Amino acid sequence: MTLAETDRVRDLKSRLSAFMDAHVIPAETAYSHHLATAPDRWSIPPVMETLKERARAEGLWNLWCPYPEFGAGLNNLDYAPLAEIMGRSLIGPEVFNCSAPDTGNMEVFIKYATKPQQEKWLTPLLAGEIRSAFCMTEPAVASSDATNVEASILRDGDDYVVNGRKWWSSGANDPRCKILIVMGKNDPSAERHKQQSMILVPIDTPGVTVLRSLNVFGADDAPHGHAEINFDNVRVPAENILLGEGRGFEIAQGRLGPGRIHHCMRLIGGAQRALEMMCARATKRTPFGKPLADQGVVRQQIALSACEIEQGRLLAMAAADKMDRLGNKEARDLIGMAKIVIPQMAQTVIDRAIQLHGAAGVCQDTVLAGQFAYARTIRIADGPDEVHQDSLARQMIKRFGTQ
Amino acid sequence: MTLAETDRVRDLKSRLSAFMDAHVIPAETAYSHHLATAPDRWSIPPVMETLKERARAEGLWNLWCPYPEFGAGLNNLDYAPLAEIMGRSLIGPEVFNCSAPDTGNMEVFIKYATKPQQEKWLTPLLAGEIRSAFCMTEPAVASSDATNVEASILRDGDDYVVNGRKWWSSGANDPRCKILIVMGKNDPSAERHKQQSMILVPIDTPGVTVLRSLNVFGADDAPHGHAEINFDNVRVPAENILLGEGRGFEIAQGRLGPGRIHHCMRLIGGAQRALEMMCARATKRTPFGKPLADQGVVRQQIALSACEIEQGRLLAMAAADKMDRLGNKEARDLIGMAKIVIPQMAQTVIDRAIQLHGAAGVCQDTVLAGQFAYARTIRIADGPDEVHQDSLARQMIKRFGTQ
Amino acid sequence: MTLAETDRVRDLKSRLSAFMDAHVIPAETAYSHHLATAPDRWSIPPVMETLKERARAEGLWNLWCPYPEFGAGLNNLDYAPLAEIMGRSLIGPEVFNCSAPDTGNMEVFIKYATKPQQEKWLTPLLAGEIRSAFCMTEPAVASSDATNVEASILRDGDDYVVNGRKWWSSGANDPRCKILIVMGKNDPSAERHKQQSMILVPIDTPGVTVLRSLNVFGADDAPHGHAEINFDNVRVPAENILLGEGRGFEIAQGRLGPGRIHHCMRLIGGAQRALEMMCARATKRTPFGKPLADQGVVRQQIALSACEIEQGRLLAMAAADKMDRLGNKEARDLIGMAKIVIPQMAQTVIDRAIQLHGAAGVCQDTVLAGQFAYARTIRIADGPDEVHQDSLARQMIKRFGTQ
Amino acid sequence: MTLAETDRVRDLKSRLSAFMDAHVIPAETAYSHHLATAPDRWSIPPVMETLKERARAEGLWNLWCPYPEFGAGLNNLDYAPLAEIMGRSLIGPEVFNCSAPDTGNMEVFIKYATKPQQEKWLTPLLAGEIRSAFCMTEPAVASSDATNVEASILRDGDDYVVNGRKWWSSGANDPRCKILIVMGKNDPSAERHKQQSMILVPIDTPGVTVLRSLNVFGADDAPHGHAEINFDNVRVPAENILLGEGRGFEIAQGRLGPGRIHHCMRLIGGAQRALEMMCARATKRTPFGKPLADQGVVRQQIALSACEIEQGRLLAMAAADKMDRLGNKEARDLIGMAKIVIPQMAQTVIDRAIQLHGAAGVCQDTVLAGQFAYARTIRIADGPDEVHQDSLARQMIKRFGTQ
Repeated sequence: MTLAETDRVRDLKSRLSAFMDAHVIPAETAYSHHLATAPDRWSIPPVMETLKERARAEGLWNLWCPYPEFGAGLNNLDYAPLAEIMGRSLIGPEVFNCSAPDTGNMEVFIKYATKPQQEKWLTPLLAGEIRSAFCMTEPAVASSDATNVEASILRDGDDYVVNGRKWWSSGANDPRCKILIVMGKNDPSAERHKQQSMILVPIDTPGVTVLRSLNVFGADDAPHGHAEINFDNVRVPAENILLGEGRGFEIAQGRLGPGRIHHCMRLIGGAQRALEMMCARATKRTPFGKPLADQGVVRQQIALSACEIEQGRLLAMAAADKMDRLGNKEARDLIGMAKIVIPQMAQTVIDRAIQLHGAAGVCQDTVLAGQFAYARTIRIADGPDEVHQDSLARQMIKRFGTQ
Repeated sequence: MTLAETDRVRDLKSRLSAFMDAHVIPAETAYSHHLATAPDRWSIPPVMETLKERARAEGLWNLWCPYPEFGAGLNNLDYAPLAEIMGRSLIGPEVFNCSAPDTGNMEVFIKYATKPQQEKWLTPLLAGEIRSAFCMTEPAVASSDATNVEASILRDGDDYVVNGRKWWSSGANDPRCKILIVMGKNDPSAERHKQQSMILVPIDTPGVTVLRSLNVFGADDAPHGHAEINFDNVRVPAENILLGEGRGFEIAQGRLGPGRIHHCMRLIGGAQRALEMMCARATKRTPFGKPLADQGVVRQQIALSACEIEQGRLLAMAAADKMDRLGNKEARDLIGMAKIVIPQMAQTVIDRAIQLHGAAGVCQDTVLAGQFAYARTIRIADGPDEVHQDSLARQMIKRFGTQ
Repeated sequence: MTLAETDRVRDLKSRLSAFMDAHVIPAETAYSHHLATAPDRWSIPPVMETLKERARAEGLWNLWCPYPEFGAGLNNLDYAPLAEIMGRSLIGPEVFNCSAPDTGNMEVFIKYATKPQQEKWLTPLLAGEIRSAFCMTEPAVASSDATNVEASILRDGDDYVVNGRKWWSSGANDPRCKILIVMGKNDPSAERHKQQSMILVPIDTPGVTVLRSLNVFGADDAPHGHAEINFDNVRVPAENILLGEGRGFEIAQGRLGPGRIHHCMRLIGGAQRALEMMCARATKRTPFGKPLADQGVVRQQIALSACEIEQGRLLAMAAADKMDRLGNKEARDLIGMAKIVIPQMAQTVIDRAIQLHGAAGVCQDTVLAGQFAYARTIRIADGPDEVHQDSLARQMIKRFGTQ
Repeated sequence: MTLAETDRVRDLKSRLSAFMDAHVIPAETAYSHHLATAPDRWSIPPVMETLKERARAEGLWNLWCPYPEFGAGLNNLDYAPLAEIMGRSLIGPEVFNCSAPDTGNMEVFIKYATKPQQEKWLTPLLAGEIRSAFCMTEPAVASSDATNVEASILRDGDDYVVNGRKWWSSGANDPRCKILIVMGKNDPSAERHKQQSMILVPIDTPGVTVLRSLNVFGADDAPHGHAEINFDNVRVPAENILLGEGRGFEIAQGRLGPGRIHHCMRLIGGAQRALEMMCARATKRTPFGKPLADQGVVRQQIALSACEIEQGRLLAMAAADKMDRLGNKEARDLIGMAKIVIPQMAQTVIDRAIQLHGAAGVCQDTVLAGQFAYARTIRIADGPDEVHQDSLARQMIKRFGTQ
């Protein structure tokens, strides 16, 4: 057993960190400025495409992708520290083609799509030319229970016809978003986890209407957004089905394991940056005549944050390692733990950083408010805290209960 | 000792509650819709002026004002449950001319202004015809320590000349905002708490530039906003000074006591509404085949929230009662406690409500995200939690320490 | 509505405080010394009887008792601050004949016993001549649900025969304990809340065996103890039944309301003393060359503790007031809140005080460890936190849920 | 980087677990029974010596010892899971000659003692024939700051003369305790960290008086105890000095690093056992007609405990690994984190387990109260939480602050 890093990971960490410090963090202001002043908030700040080109040129591209034929071929444990570094900036993951929901969607294409489906959609996604969205959550039902999904995907001749209302389809407001992966029911009479299918719906298909963008604590997360979308008799060819009818739940499960842990890794980066910002602010700011760093309460907040981040980081690494060694299913206890612990940890740490930054902490002048909102939503997305707690407890009771 | 309410309070509570339920809560949607679709976000939704007229006609007007010659003449303890009821809606307090920062500013006019100053500004403020802003916090210094203020207010002949940069001047983006109360230093060589003055600056005075509106977690809080304002050689007549040179700190103290407790009372209303929304959602929403209300964890969240709200409410009442009986200075221990406890309590309760509402909880479809942001900022405004904790502890140590 | 105290309460508070400071707190050392050195730990330190005599002579006696014909005739709201003052010392309540379980048991005798039962047992209890125990909890079943009780009380001719095993019969190890109130089932076929009866069992009845004393975190709580008692065919006359067969649950409910709130009031006193000890220690102790009071973290602990204690105090008062005005049943929401909040609050505050006292805080050299254990057990006794949370939540959901 | 275990560790874990389950856990009752009934509580339950013999015979002996010539030669990372397993029982570590304070004291003998000192004291300690105590903390001064030590160790001819009062000398009440390592000042005029020396004092030296045993929450921790000891002109030969005059602080530092992490590892075992007890109880206990395991709140407590334990475990491992790879000094950030996090974590988890066990949880019928007290004291011992937080924060601020 050793926690020492491999040479490849050490090299990637070092180059990625340098890239972040030299190019990404400094670009945050230009990015925000574009959005604040552009005639259309739903347009892409040019700096993003510049950064993507540079990252790709330096080989810092598709690092998330464990399949060597499609990407970097790193396992989860190797990717963990890299995702953390990217997560230091909210615009970081996209620069390296490692942002949600595209990573999860690309994973779906790699694992479950046909060759023609891959050629049409996976290839441009891997190249960072288009973006995608995942349409699962619905406004009318409790989506913490995926079997509640009510959208329908019904066979009609050579086509499937999709009807329903989805929301929180993150990224679907992005003008580059071309393809939607839609979950719906095709057979309500089937066994509870076999009723759902997933299907590919090009966003320009007639009947697809992006109704609005949902705010997160008032922020619209432009230019990606969180879309509410209506599907009104949307007709797509039958070959657009993924894996086959009734396989939707299975695909969702396969997608969520890595997706959850990727969010956790990024959030560790957000929390770590908040900690570093606290330290910097504590040495610079001097209310009542001495630096904040001289106040015991400030130091305690810093110390507790450091402890909690380190523990979150180790938990994400342990989950990643178990996924690598024993598979996602065996690792579901640690994945669940990471999903329970890390978003809440990030929320707590960032909340402390906000408090230390005072009024500057809640407004657009720092990254803290945005990172806070990200952490807060991940406590709800991909299964709310409570669902993961419940599932973890059942595993523990099964393991240690008497009978 | 009795906690029974007086008849007048009971009557006002009942009428105010009825008004909120019948008119204010239902108007929230129209209010938001106006802001989301108006060509200018910084315009006033017409429904607001309609509501104000009706409230005034029903005698539900200036209830905050303890001076019978200017308003309802209620004491703090009587006002507490009324402010709570108004606070259930973010648009509630304004309807009854009881919203910050105007209440605090009107209090300043009543206690510290000359007759002519009152006639010019207080009269239209009491009538709800104009609005005002309070310019104290500065981006460059730690404003948790009011003596850090760097703006200057310097005598020049019959005028004062104001220079400096202020931010978080809430309400100054509102088109109805006509008058600014500005704090600045007129004599840096004076004793530490005598260096500051306050002066009245009409917002249309040459040299006043509203630079931008600050977001709170991404929300712009239109149409009121939180303004960053530049004062560049702003010249006002000498009679615009409030109370006299060097009295700024004293006015700030006199303004803050009631202001803090008013924010706390409103936040109790916000938290109470969140609790009721939790209960309603728990009975309606049925993931995994049974109502959320049947889940023990949901019930625990509801129970803890009820306990915390009730404790916050009692603390606000106790502080109000002590202010009424012994004065703001004697009551500073309980005011401090309320300021420490209640915003954090509201943040916690609303965070739980958000979690229970899932994705709907963070977006524009419920009031929760806005109430969360309000609670979060009050933990920073008017003295951050830590400053009040420190001050309270010093009082305790003085009282119970040995020597 | 006013929080001002009545003259009688102010006078009693003042005299009781003076008595505590002059006589009770100084006697704690002698009391502990007796127990540490007596040949029999289960003997009464003589100082206790001396203190009781003096308290009775000064009219500080049976203050708990709301019935003027039996005691002070104070209502719950008046008694709250007095119980708090007594609770500052673990030996305080007994000095004034206000200690559990005797107060609850005396209340049972007053409300539910016959004249002859009262003459035989209530009279000496009110005089502080004997003590009593309440035998309800059983080791074999989950006593958080009172209907689980398995002991039997069966009619046999002119007698009842009691069988069963009870534990946590606090005070039954005390040599002065003469009478047990025992709860058991007399008719398992009756409706769920009508199966239980309560009966009076003199402790010297054949078949009663006090098996052992249970520790609380290692402390035996001598000379009162927490007894495990076996009842083996214990025969008592039929007139020893309280109120009648099947009324046991009803009596238990009637006993628990005030009992819970009394524990809470005492714990507030324990927490308040811990806070004052923290302040005293903070001014005296000087690690790293300056007083602990100069450390921000210490001050924060003190401030948070002050806030939490004040909130607990207000909640206990509000519950007491509602009991006085509307009855125990109507007040069950506030009683439940107090029971949920205050023991946990006291545990938290005392834990902080322990930390500040370092090694001295956990050992026999301060009152903190004992007060901690008291707070900790009350989170379990008279319904664990979770049961009260659940019950409170159901009330809230009923009130605010939709339907 | 891999978290996979080595074969040797896997084998030791498996054998140690089997030994614990087969011999140690079942012996807890006999051990307690001996102490509860023996004429002298300060006598060793015979089962302990039997267990030690068996453990030694099976090669499960001195596993803590990283020096192959003296013990198992495992590094810290290898030892971590073993110490956890031993820590599942409060009597576990002693069985394998791995209990505090002997492990720390043996480490001192190995690293800092002369050959003759080792032969006289280390040899029987390694054989488990005698025990030792570490006399550092003093009742009169704040020992969180080691430079406060006031005991004196003064040269007088060929002797040193020791004077002072020590307390919390754990294990010194044990009849097998033969040797004390005493810290005191020999030169108050020297530089602050060079004033202290350590010296060996046989417990039977004239002038050494064990005054009393200190309780922990009422428990005397017999037969080891926590002694208060008076040193009154205690004269020992000059060769009893350790390492030399003025080296006391250095030795203390060298002893504390591993000592702290060992306590943490054991506490993880205590917390893990509490978790397993919760799961077992949750499946067996059925208040209100269904198993506790069916209550959502119980499941949440179990899930959160599992998360926190796993995070603590990973943190202890990370600290151990850094100690192994980079040395104790470089690893002081992670050692500090472990010391801050794990005792509090164990206290929290065990507190939940107590709550779930109800009255049984606080008394002598389960191991929970004892484990709770152990966790609680470690938050104070070897540097209180606050001192470690402060030190960690300073490291962070140094690393990330601006300048």
